[in-house]
Formats: sequence, C-alpha cells, structure tokens
Amino acid sequence: MRAAVLRDGRMVYRDDVPEPVPGPGQVLVGVKACGICGSDLHFAAHGDEVVEMTAQVSAGAGGMAVDLNSDVFMGHEFSAEVLEAGPDTDTHPPGTPVTSLPLLLSAGGVEPIVYSNSTIGGYAERMLLSAPLLMPIPNGLDLKHAALTEPMAVGLHAVNKSNIQPGETALVLGCGPIGIAIVASLRARGVENIVAADFSPKRRELATAMGAHQTVDAAQGSPFDTVKPAVVFEAVGVPGIIDDVLRRARPGTRLVVAGVCMQPDTVHPFFAIAKEINVQFVLAYNPEEFGDSLRALAEGEIDVTPLITGEVGLEGVGQAFDDLADPERHCKILVTP
Amino acid sequence: MRAAVLRDGRMVYRDDVPEPVPGPGQVLVGVKACGICGSDLHFAAHGDEVVEMTAQVSAGAGGMAVDLNSDVFMGHEFSAEVLEAGPDTDTHPPGTPVTSLPLLLSAGGVEPIVYSNSTIGGYAERMLLSAPLLMPIPNGLDLKHAALTEPMAVGLHAVNKSNIQPGETALVLGCGPIGIAIVASLRARGVENIVAADFSPKRRELATAMGAHQTVDAAQGSPFDTVKPAVVFEAVGVPGIIDDVLRRARPGTRLVVAGVCMQPDTVHPFFAIAKEINVQFVLAYNPEEFGDSLRALAEGEIDVTPLITGEVGLEGVGQAFDDLADPERHCKILVTP
Repeated sequence: MRAAVLRDGRMVYRDDVPEPVPGPGQVLVGVKACGICGSDLHFAAHGDEVVEMTAQVSAGAGGMAVDLNSDVFMGHEFSAEVLEAGPDTDTHPPGTPVTSLPLLLSAGGVEPIVYSNSTIGGYAERMLLSAPLLMPIPNGLDLKHAALTEPMAVGLHAVNKSNIQPGETALVLGCGPIGIAIVASLRARGVENIVAADFSPKRRELATAMGAHQTVDAAQGSPFDTVKPAVVFEAVGVPGIIDDVLRRARPGTRLVVAGVCMQPDTVHPFFAIAKEINVQFVLAYNPEEFGDSLRALAEGEIDVTPLITGEVGLEGVGQAFDDLADPERHCKILVTP
Repeated sequence: MRAAVLRDGRMVYRDDVPEPVPGPGQVLVGVKACGICGSDLHFAAHGDEVVEMTAQVSAGAGGMAVDLNSDVFMGHEFSAEVLEAGPDTDTHPPGTPVTSLPLLLSAGGVEPIVYSNSTIGGYAERMLLSAPLLMPIPNGLDLKHAALTEPMAVGLHAVNKSNIQPGETALVLGCGPIGIAIVASLRARGVENIVAADFSPKRRELATAMGAHQTVDAAQGSPFDTVKPAVVFEAVGVPGIIDDVLRRARPGTRLVVAGVCMQPDTVHPFFAIAKEINVQFVLAYNPEEFGDSLRALAEGEIDVTPLITGEVGLEGVGQAFDDLADPERHCKILVTP
C-alpha cells in the first residue's frame, strides 16, 4: 500500500507499507482527504523535543512510545470511506463517507492517531478506524471539507473554553489554521467584534473571509494600541507572546492559549496579578465538540473553502511540508491519496 | 504626631509628622492596630522594583507617584476609632470603632492607602479615612482582630475566584499570611479536604490551627506526590513555583496565583496546554468581599488569634520588619500606636 511517512525528519513516499488488517471493532477505510496540520510540521522538525516534553507531562503514565529512528505514520485530519469491517463488527455499509476522532481502539487500549510507528494515519491510502467512533458525513458535504472537521473542532473548543459572549470583543493573535478556526467559530457563535492580527497580508485576508470584522497588521504596532479586547486568543505559539499579552491587556482580560509553544517561555507574573488576568490553556476538543464541528460544516454554518490552498498526492507530501512554511502561499494543504 | 516611615529602605520612627487635617468627606481616626503585610516588607527592600513594575502595567494611567528619596507612609491593614469629621461631613460619632478599604477619597481623586509620600497609613497615631467607606466594627470584635479584615479579604477573594466546591481537594502552597488566609476561607466555605504545604513547622502548625486538614513538609518532596488537588493556591510568589505546578498538576487543574512574584519567571506553556490548566491570577478583593471578611471575623466564623504572633509600638516597627523574616517566630505582627 502507498503512504507518506516521516523518516529522518522528512516526509518520504513509500509504496510498500503492509496493508492494515482490521481487528474486532475496527474498520478498514480508504482515505479520501487528510489535512496537513502545523503540529505535523513541528513534529517532523522537532520530533525529539515533542517526545521528550510529552514524556515529562505524562511522567509515569507511559508517555508516547514513538521511535524516531523508525518510520512514523502521521495524519489526524481525515475523511474516508468505509471499505471493510473487522471480525464480528457491525458498522456502516461499504462506501459510507465517514470521519472520526483520531483514536484507534484495540485490544491493547486506546491509541491516538497522531504520531506512531505502527498505527497508520491519514497520509496513506488506507487506515484503520474504530467502529464505535465513526461519524457518517451528512448532507453530501464535500469530503475535502469534512477532513477539516478536526482543526475546526480545535477552534470551537478554544471558543467554548473562553465562554465569550456575543457583545464581547475578541482579539485573535495569529491567523494560521488554528487562529482561523477560532475566527470561524467566534463568527458562528455570533460574536459581534472579532479582530484578527497577523504579519501576513494573505492570512489577514483569509481571516476576513472566515469572519473577522477587522484585521490588524502586527508589523504596524501592537493590536492592543487600537483594540480593547475582553478575550484574547493566542494562536501563535512562540515564546514572548504570552508575556506581551499580560503586559498590554486590560484588567480582567481572559487569555486563551491555543498556540502550542514547546520552548520555555518568560513571563512576568506581576503583570497578570496586577490585572487579575485569567489564562486558560487549551488543547484539542471533546467528542461532542468534534460532532458539533462536523455538523457546522455540513449545515453550511462554516465554509472552509477559503482555507484550502493546495492539494497533493502521497508523493507530494514532502514538498507540501516545505511549502507550508510560506504563509503567503498556503494555509491548509490537503493530501488526497 | 508619631509615625513609622520608610526611609532609605528602613522603617524609622518619627515624632514630627504634621497632624493630618480631614477635608470634606474625610474623617480623622486614631489608629488602634495595623498589621504588617508582606508586601510592605517587599516594598521596603525592593521599592524601586515595585514602582518600576507598577509603572509598566499602568502605562499611561499615571502609575504610582512615589518618591523613594522622601519618607514613605505605609500600613493598609488597620482598625481605628473615629475622632473628628471633616467639614460638612456626616459620619459615625467619635469613638466608633471602624475599618475601611484602604482608599482615601479626596478632591484630587482616589488614592490607595498603601505606599505614599503624603497619604498617611496605619503605621501612625492618626490617619485620614473616607466617610463613605467607613465600616463600623460590630459585635465588640477585638480591634486587633479587626485589623486583619484586609488580609483575610485577600484570602476570601482568592477562594471566591477559584470557584472551588466543598468536595474538591485544595492544595495551598505557602503558609505565610496569605496562604493562611486562604486556608481559613476555604474552611469557612466548607471545603472538606484542605492540604497546606510549607517548609516551616511553625507555619504548618498555624495552617492546621486555621483549618487545614492535612499539611505537607515541602522539604520532604513535592506535595503532588501524595495529593491530587483540583485547585491549587500558589501563595509563595517566587520564580519557579508556577512552572512546578504546571509540570506536576493533574489535567484540568485550576491554579490560583495569589503569591506576588515581581521577577520574570520561566514557564513551559506546553505543560499547561497538554493538561488544559486554568491559571487565575488574583490581587486584593472587592468592597463586598472586604465587608464579608469583617463579618466573618465579627461572627466568629474565622478566629485570627493564632495568626497574631507579635505586637509592637511605632518605635518597634523597624525591628518588627526584620523579625518577620523568620517564619519560625512570626506570622503577623501588629503595630499598636
């Protein structure tokens, strides 16, 4: 079978991956589309750091047993078509378009479909999913759009955790895929003043297309010079951003940290104390939010068309990883095996 | 008039302070007791840093106009007795025992009674308070206890902001006056499992006396080795503590930062992201909480007797500042002019 795998820091094409065989409760699916996530780019470049940091936070709980000296399967933003159920497994008929939380249930337990030497992800012709977690894709939703259920769920979760009300001003720092997903969810929630900041003109355009009422060029000064947000969404994930928000934000600000900063970061607690700032760190989503995200796409509440800036086959994944470094060219590239 | 003032980093006794004269809406009071707060110790040692950091967070808003080359009045945890109202000012009769939010209203605006070259605080024979903010001390509450209305309100506010429920486990890191105030408020709120950690045996004893169900010697390893708190109160305020909590806490932990760390601090955002930790920074209290704190003391819900470990006159304030460095000897020293 064909797949793109991470080997020595690069995505390489293989046509000799053993065909996955569904066990009880599992379903073999054919991948229709899989989005390339920024976290995959980060893992490709800094996998050792991710493995090390994950081990630190899950001390004693096993951590993430990924061997970077062997090929790593990735791809967790996928849509697919049911091919064949495992033994004694009741599921949707072959041909049903589906997506799923990126988790594989097996006799050994629950394995995230994210980075693995053995569990195949969405950068492959076929993969295994779990029958109880399959969600049929409704309303004839384009399977390329359905692949973005996962990243849009990340945005929805950040917005839910913020508990923002429609009349409150939201400032979204960073208009990469996560920032854009947050903008889209804020708009769908009815927030009336959404401001998005980024250095890239292309990304600011995208933010506007996805629902931002106003954009700010981060190169022209701090957004806090002109915007007085009640809620700030940090979707950049580099050191220094959190402290800058603590320094500039108004008293009582709620800061939602959705950007994944893997490095140590310096903050001045006093800034946050003096202003009683609340910082909610967020990651991922819950199953209900994943379902809500799919529904929002299927019912047309959120249209992800502007986000999809490229499409490649499995042979093109390596190049696509490189191309995604340029924010003027790309937001989300889909792999269509 | 007699007072203790900060001069060149030391508290010095003066007997030549001009008598304060109440303006309209102000009341001259005789100070009965004033607690020495850790923030006063910090200001005495690092006033320049506090002034600089405060200017940074209140950029453009005026900041704190304190000249460290002139004498500074301090003392914001006080009880007093009404002496004389200013012109056209209706207030309680002379002799009424009162306390107040540490704010002085004047024609020029609202000035905090905390660090000032001109507004006299509680380390003095007499001071000015604001008629609309006076709270009579009820139930014959000991005026030495009433002086602790303010620090106990700080603890109450931290507990209120945590939104802790009685069945949730609380871990309080640091059993100085703020940590102890938090323990007392948690107990008054009915929290059923309060764990307090400190290096000092004396302070752990005090935590037990004030309501902790369990104490942990921080020298014997991390409290997180044995305690699985839902809510963590950080009342230490030195660099490194926040990151240690982010690293060790369980997923979903709420961290309330009540310790005032003035230095830059290093954190690993990834620890907090991976566990979706919420960090609520807190400072001070609102007027309602100040009133609730006084009521809790007056009705015997909280007994601060164990906290008061010393009492000095105005001449003894300098020595008391030195003595408070030893956690085995002291928690709260009252100045009784």
